[in-house]
Amino acid sequence: MSLEELDLSCKLTAEAWDELSDQLKKRLGVLQQRARTLKIPTILIFEGWGASGKGEMISRLIANLDPRGYAVYSITAPSEDERRYPWLRRFWQKLPLYGDMAIFDRSWYREVSLAREEEELSHQELENRFREIEDFEQQLVDDGYLLLKFFLHISKKEQKERFAHLEEKKATRWRVTGRDWEHHRHYGRYLKLFDDMIDRTNPVTAPWTLVEATDRRYAMKKVFTRVIEAWEQAIAQREQPASTTFPGIRTSPDIPLEPSPRLAEIDLSPTLEEGPYRKELERCQKRLEELHGLLYRKRIPMILAYEGWDAAGKGGNIKRLARALDARGYQVVPISAPTPPEKNRHYLWRFWQVLPRDGHIAIFDRTWYGRVMVEHIEGFCTEEQWARAYDEINRFEGVLSRWGAIILKFWLQIDQDEQLRRFQDRQNTPEKRYKITDEDWRNREKWPAYEKAVDEMLARTNTSYAPWIVVESNDKRYARIKTLHEVIQAIEQRL
Amino acid sequence: MSLEELDLSCKLTAEAWDELSDQLKKRLGVLQQRARTLKIPTILIFEGWGASGKGEMISRLIANLDPRGYAVYSITAPSEDERRYPWLRRFWQKLPLYGDMAIFDRSWYREVSLAREEEELSHQELENRFREIEDFEQQLVDDGYLLLKFFLHISKKEQKERFAHLEEKKATRWRVTGRDWEHHRHYGRYLKLFDDMIDRTNPVTAPWTLVEATDRRYAMKKVFTRVIEAWEQAIAQREQPASTTFPGIRTSPDIPLEPSPRLAEIDLSPTLEEGPYRKELERCQKRLEELHGLLYRKRIPMILAYEGWDAAGKGGNIKRLARALDARGYQVVPISAPTPPEKNRHYLWRFWQVLPRDGHIAIFDRTWYGRVMVEHIEGFCTEEQWARAYDEINRFEGVLSRWGAIILKFWLQIDQDEQLRRFQDRQNTPEKRYKITDEDWRNREKWPAYEKAVDEMLARTNTSYAPWIVVESNDKRYARIKTLHEVIQAIEQRL
Repeated sequence: MSLEELDLSCKLTAEAWDELSDQLKKRLGVLQQRARTLKIPTILIFEGWGASGKGEMISRLIANLDPRGYAVYSITAPSEDERRYPWLRRFWQKLPLYGDMAIFDRSWYREVSLAREEEELSHQELENRFREIEDFEQQLVDDGYLLLKFFLHISKKEQKERFAHLEEKKATRWRVTGRDWEHHRHYGRYLKLFDDMIDRTNPVTAPWTLVEATDRRYAMKKVFTRVIEAWEQAIAQREQPASTTFPGIRTSPDIPLEPSPRLAEIDLSPTLEEGPYRKELERCQKRLEELHGLLYRKRIPMILAYEGWDAAGKGGNIKRLARALDARGYQVVPISAPTPPEKNRHYLWRFWQVLPRDGHIAIFDRTWYGRVMVEHIEGFCTEEQWARAYDEINRFEGVLSRWGAIILKFWLQIDQDEQLRRFQDRQNTPEKRYKITDEDWRNREKWPAYEKAVDEMLARTNTSYAPWIVVESNDKRYARIKTLHEVIQAIEQRL
Repeated sequence: MSLEELDLSCKLTAEAWDELSDQLKKRLGVLQQRARTLKIPTILIFEGWGASGKGEMISRLIANLDPRGYAVYSITAPSEDERRYPWLRRFWQKLPLYGDMAIFDRSWYREVSLAREEEELSHQELENRFREIEDFEQQLVDDGYLLLKFFLHISKKEQKERFAHLEEKKATRWRVTGRDWEHHRHYGRYLKLFDDMIDRTNPVTAPWTLVEATDRRYAMKKVFTRVIEAWEQAIAQREQPASTTFPGIRTSPDIPLEPSPRLAEIDLSPTLEEGPYRKELERCQKRLEELHGLLYRKRIPMILAYEGWDAAGKGGNIKRLARALDARGYQVVPISAPTPPEKNRHYLWRFWQVLPRDGHIAIFDRTWYGRVMVEHIEGFCTEEQWARAYDEINRFEGVLSRWGAIILKFWLQIDQDEQLRRFQDRQNTPEKRYKITDEDWRNREKWPAYEKAVDEMLARTNTSYAPWIVVESNDKRYARIKTLHEVIQAIEQRL
């Protein structure tokens, strides 16, 4: 499929449009409500030439919709602040709630088209972006998002006429900038660039709709019709009973996994005496403090993910680590059960909200791995959902790693006897009692199920760029020092 | 109270600190947990000279706290994007959840101290900021936030020595900038400026604690002790039973109110025929489209607030208005019951999240007035809370108005018979049925209580800068045209 193959002379007469439009508009309104009720989230992307009518198209489209159900985003160059995060973050942040719509006037495709020329992306950077777009869209579609991508195409001659027309009137003159004319002069180069972009991002699950946009009525008909058809199809699918066969765990050959231990095989006997512990703790904290300053100055982000059994000592471990850090350069992010706005979006959305800036450290107290542990075991997500989560998480961490983050994931391992001792200690000590709940006792009964899930998790998400480190935590002192050593070593290696 | 009166030679010996510190640290940890349990939110502000030890103080303080309960914010100049909103927005956004802590390394006081020199604020702008700080802090304290403000003071000589010391070592040299030295050279001027700032923002409900910061141990003791005392006091207050007498509605003489009609006196007979309606609708939409472009170019924000009876026609009214607007320059913000993150903060917090950028229009479908209507009538907030909400809302809208926003508030008025007709119509029309719920019927039974609340609301929040416009909505066509006329007129007046 190529833009040049489009017949830009396509037209629709005013009469034909009048005849059609009422019906289309009404249908749009009805389907939007239906999609809301069924909680189908919809994302519409409008890309295209300057003056191809993207803005007007969006205005016309939403005129038929309930304004409570959508948001429109106009995408320009990222702000200075946005540049300090992974580039996709600003798009993840704009994900609509299930049932709602997001409409993009330009989108992430800006970053592989216009930005390609304007920001002199390296070849590698461009390749990464294309790959991450593919992953991003696949994740959205897998999660039930309806994603429609439109490209509005006009000829060089038509664009020139439209610019000239806008410049004629005082009220619209400001809409045409020097950069627009610059793009116009290099129409041929951009045409190739757009064609390449469309060609590389056109999977069956999220295909482009190319729109002949010379005639606005024709374009409207094409866009409206496509939205209607897509909604009808999505609604029909949603109304069918879901398949109940286990889909199997999704893995990608392009993500090589490292070998990982099984929990049952971990030797939990290592200990550390109070004296050597104090000394080593002080030494490590001092070293980490220096390294934190270097990370900050070199703008290297770091992500430390903590998982482990209840009462394994995550809190105390994090505290010893955090104590070495400058308060302005790190944040502890506690993860508990998702709130409704989090539950009603892709499960990774909430983590994109709390990524560290470059140069900062984020310490996650529990993480996105909840998907394949508690959500899996408690049945908060479907088999299909957790079975593909390993792969999604590997890709998510891949994005962070390519962005430049140092990623370490700690599993704090204790045995059942040790957990029981700690639970009882909490129960019997008034100022610790708030730390123990009935849920902790219930989870404890599911130890074998969790152990199986954790082994699977370690095996499926242990990558070279985001390794799991099992921390023997029956002895808290040993565990804290081991964690510090690992963090220090990872930073030293990077520097 | 003046910085110059502080005795900067205050010291604490290492032995004295050793003796004290364990006890203080332990107490901090215990009280933090207690405050969390009682849902007391805490905000700590650290202001002070460059190199006075703010960062280190924060690090030392939080080393004793559970990292899951706080966030640290380092405040520098606002970003380009942040400048497009009311200046306090970025601080409102950082409000902690009830029970959590926010710690600020510099704060909103940056905007009336450093910014005063660096950004050449006008006298009026500075006065506004001082006033808005006062309101902001009062609102936080009223809502139960514990607000502690520390200023770390050192002498000019001490500052020079500290800068020199930092510059000696390679690892810390980057921390001292040209601007730091520039501030140092004008120490005397900044001293006056800080004194003035402290003097003007030192109410009994949110007083400053001035800290002699030459000796770090002495400073730590003072800060830790103050936090402990404040927590103890807040906890004691929270544990006492709340007073049950009605506090009376809070009003401020500095906010003059305009007369407002009573709902029962509104003449709901005006109608508009289909023919003239179509014609006028088209004319108005065309005019509004032009005006929207002008607002956008002049970067004037606009806030349209819709309230009204269930089935009064808010949705349809908004739709007719939105149709005239460029999709990239406005957003419809539907307000429904607050989510947990919203419920667990000051009730105005959620509205600060969704303010329009300058040049944009935000259309609120229901608003912050829920506080004095549904929350009041259903008992979701206390008498004390809704009784002061009128005043808080007037101040909130005052902030928006001074920022430059055009604010219009519409009350869509219908009578009980008309509502019944519309409810029945919704019930009997399949594609409208999703619009009517049991709750609508229940609310209908409380009509008299709501009417009283709305009359009170109109009377207490009808200001010249954010007027209420009662829209006779028994006839939807009439209502839509009236709203459009009001919006057009308000923009024309401003331009």
